[in-house]
Amino acid sequence: MRLKILVFITLCITQVNITRADMASLPSWKDSAARQDIVSFVASVSDESSPDFVPASERIAVFDNDGTLWSERPVYFQLIFAIDRVKALAAQHPEWATTQPFQAVLEDDMDALAASGEKGILQLIMATHADLTTDEFTKIVKDWLATATHPKFGRPYNELVYQPMLELLDYLRVNGFKTFIVSGGGIEFMRPWVEAVYGIPPEQVVGSSIKTKFEYRDGKSVLVRLPEIDFIDDKAGKPVGINKHIGRRPILAFGNSDGDLQMLQWTAAGDGKRLMGLVHHTDAEREFAYDRKSHIGKLDAALDQANRDGWTVVNMEADWSEMYPPE
Amino acid sequence: MRLKILVFITLCITQVNITRADMASLPSWKDSAARQDIVSFVASVSDESSPDFVPASERIAVFDNDGTLWSERPVYFQLIFAIDRVKALAAQHPEWATTQPFQAVLEDDMDALAASGEKGILQLIMATHADLTTDEFTKIVKDWLATATHPKFGRPYNELVYQPMLELLDYLRVNGFKTFIVSGGGIEFMRPWVEAVYGIPPEQVVGSSIKTKFEYRDGKSVLVRLPEIDFIDDKAGKPVGINKHIGRRPILAFGNSDGDLQMLQWTAAGDGKRLMGLVHHTDAEREFAYDRKSHIGKLDAALDQANRDGWTVVNMEADWSEMYPPE
Repeated sequence: MRLKILVFITLCITQVNITRADMASLPSWKDSAARQDIVSFVASVSDESSPDFVPASERIAVFDNDGTLWSERPVYFQLIFAIDRVKALAAQHPEWATTQPFQAVLEDDMDALAASGEKGILQLIMATHADLTTDEFTKIVKDWLATATHPKFGRPYNELVYQPMLELLDYLRVNGFKTFIVSGGGIEFMRPWVEAVYGIPPEQVVGSSIKTKFEYRDGKSVLVRLPEIDFIDDKAGKPVGINKHIGRRPILAFGNSDGDLQMLQWTAAGDGKRLMGLVHHTDAEREFAYDRKSHIGKLDAALDQANRDGWTVVNMEADWSEMYPPE
Repeated sequence: MRLKILVFITLCITQVNITRADMASLPSWKDSAARQDIVSFVASVSDESSPDFVPASERIAVFDNDGTLWSERPVYFQLIFAIDRVKALAAQHPEWATTQPFQAVLEDDMDALAASGEKGILQLIMATHADLTTDEFTKIVKDWLATATHPKFGRPYNELVYQPMLELLDYLRVNGFKTFIVSGGGIEFMRPWVEAVYGIPPEQVVGSSIKTKFEYRDGKSVLVRLPEIDFIDDKAGKPVGINKHIGRRPILAFGNSDGDLQMLQWTAAGDGKRLMGLVHHTDAEREFAYDRKSHIGKLDAALDQANRDGWTVVNMEADWSEMYPPE
């Protein structure tokens, strides 16, 4: 009898220790189904004695950025960067005062900007992101991040990253995963800051891009950003971007919108155990609440498939004890 | 006097120890100027107390593949793969018997193949590299490497890699470098075997590519290779490819031909200490000897700039004690 009690107590202590160790790694995650999915997946693929074991070199994890690692409201932060840049450059472009979509931006007329559609947005991007060397563009992005603040939270944009996702990235890396961003956002817009913020180096960032050209300026070789789309890393472009940059199929993928559906499907279609996750924006108070009817980060078909196929859905309001890192 | 002798002996022993440790890392490199360039460069950028110190995350090293890491004669091995594949597929394409450049391949008429020019080569590549899923193509490459052998050496192509360069890749990684391939060759042609041979994972391979498309086949998501060029990673394309995939400037680059010149110039144009290297094919007996007048791997303008700017030129015949790994 005494032995049985001893064994029971030992088991309890072991259990408590395991739980504590896991909690210590993901402290901003409440003990939810989503958290359990993650912990049990990571344990099974990194345990050499498990039938689901995956060698470390193949533990590829991919994350969407907008709405998955950082916020994306009121609009994608890269669009706010483009708007701020139009205002900064307006003095050099008097014609913008009477030309759409620039006039809309200068008059803060968001309805007129929305009316300019995808074509208008593309014009904004090209006018603000091209005809610069790659080094010049990197500096502009860094300068903007150092000064601009979010309208709702009053904090720099690169502080509006989800604390639980930072912990998840770390947790995966500690367990031998290689973490990548696979975003519809501009690859060169992300690279200047993601290493410091997410611990993801520039060479592990996949994103949309414009073309660049190698040339000489003042006897020095430079890469000039051209006003021409190279690649759109969104929807069916995400598996293409993953194959182009990574060259092997992820075993874990996290997104938050229908733009991530094909990336999740591509991840799911591989052999062996895998984890497909969605961040569901349910927290109107601490962040924003939106899904099926949203223009930004619409989550509809992907949520249906997640429910149908048993993918992991993170309820931000219920599952996360913290939203952003402390100020 | 005794003290002076003691100091002298101590210094000698220290010197011998350092030299031994270095030799152990690069055993197939003779004690040449090229070897000294490499060892002193690596020491200075990885020593925290050195003014040339570079943090490990920024120690990016890039290597051309054809003629730099493996042989490229009599013609690029990927072209031999395409030729073998045309022969394997000929029964399904009776029209090839009378259509160039396929007829030239089937009749082993290398003059007629050469006469078909770049357009002909491109036709061969598209007929043999496209209209397959990425998984199917990977399997075909692996199967070919397992059976095909080189006409001069009678060994599988992926054994015709330079032993001293394998040692250099290892030596750099031991010293905190991240090693990348930046090749004009097909990215999907290299990825299936370079990790096992060079220790370079698929996500650190930059190369030329054709477009791919995400679609469903029999209810499963696949990526289909399209007969359409996506990117040519050669000449001025190499800095573009480096920026696209790596997103930061290398501090060390090795090539062997004028196709690598812009990659070397782009590497040289950064701040701080850097190493630009050329493998010069001077060994007609153990490999092949060619440079300024060669059609394959022409080394002319890059050799001039190397001599002018003090880049490291490796004389394969004089500087390497071994060429290929033992059989």
